[in-house]
Amino acid sequence: MGRPLDDAGLDTIFRTARTYNGYDDTPVTDADIRAIYDLVKMGPTSVNQQSARFVWITSQEGKDKLADLATGSNPDKIRKAPATVIIGMDLGFHEELPWLFPHAPEAKNWFADDKARHDHAFRNSSLQGAYLLIAARALGFDTGPMSGFDNAKVDAAFFSDQPNLKSNFISTLGHGDPSTIFGRLPRPEFDQFNRVV
Amino acid sequence: MGRPLDDAGLDTIFRTARTYNGYDDTPVTDADIRAIYDLVKMGPTSVNQQSARFVWITSQEGKDKLADLATGSNPDKIRKAPATVIIGMDLGFHEELPWLFPHAPEAKNWFADDKARHDHAFRNSSLQGAYLLIAARALGFDTGPMSGFDNAKVDAAFFSDQPNLKSNFISTLGHGDPSTIFGRLPRPEFDQFNRVV
Repeated sequence: MGRPLDDAGLDTIFRTARTYNGYDDTPVTDADIRAIYDLVKMGPTSVNQQSARFVWITSQEGKDKLADLATGSNPDKIRKAPATVIIGMDLGFHEELPWLFPHAPEAKNWFADDKARHDHAFRNSSLQGAYLLIAARALGFDTGPMSGFDNAKVDAAFFSDQPNLKSNFISTLGHGDPSTIFGRLPRPEFDQFNRVV
Repeated sequence: MGRPLDDAGLDTIFRTARTYNGYDDTPVTDADIRAIYDLVKMGPTSVNQQSARFVWITSQEGKDKLADLATGSNPDKIRKAPATVIIGMDLGFHEELPWLFPHAPEAKNWFADDKARHDHAFRNSSLQGAYLLIAARALGFDTGPMSGFDNAKVDAAFFSDQPNLKSNFISTLGHGDPSTIFGRLPRPEFDQFNRVV
């Protein structure tokens, strides 16, 4: 158990944090990206599978390539953001378990079923995507997660050399411009979506 | 952009936080659970779908019922933990969008396809499950996430009255007993699972 966060910390990662549609011109550097990943990789995954794979896009060429495959208002957000990250997943993550989960050399064999392995990769790469959003906020960045893009075309454009890698969702990243956020959407009361038994 | 977390805050939510296998006797109260959910619901989901549904189990009867459906060493952890939460998902989440995403009354119709709707619910309930793990840590609790249980049997035992609700993963919750954690598993170097383009 760590020291609980103070109010400002809870605001930073959850309460007043917002999804941004635009950012100021401050670049996202390689050092920033590595600092975010150094937190993301500490978050828990099932049998330490670390099944997320991240493509961090900071070049205009890369942003344009991704933007062309996005829908609605997303292309413009991607082109203008300092960075956009593709949160992908490795459907062959079990091949890495001998070194990620070394005390159970047979762990790789627990994931022989294709459907179960896909579900594990999807669930755990989503967890790691959430860790990324929170880690970025914790370090003073803002994010804009999106699932409005053509996953198959993004896979072909960014993972053609690694057919086991599939896109999950994407997020812009930078220092948010407060003029680009919308009003806070409604949140459920506890009893609407929770039960205590 | 919020005030970045200090080192102690980053330790609490990521760096020194660990997955616990056992807890001390401090109970997890209804007020604790509501405080955690009040943070979870602020995390971003696609079109504010809030597709996760949570069953917080604090009664011994409930823990025993869930433990009977878990595998490996998980039943014992569930029976002894102060609380275990089932992170579920509502495959009919789109029915709630008229009030969760009120500025686009047609949003419900964007999720007519069963497979796409399932993927959205699975992805976003996983994100909310990750928010739950981080929110609990941020408030001074410890967690023990697990996917080793029979999802179909858990659905039958806990969601029989709501057939659109399906279990995703579960997590124990409490004040961790440091004697129950294992050695930290290896973490990837940046270049193993990341690219910058």
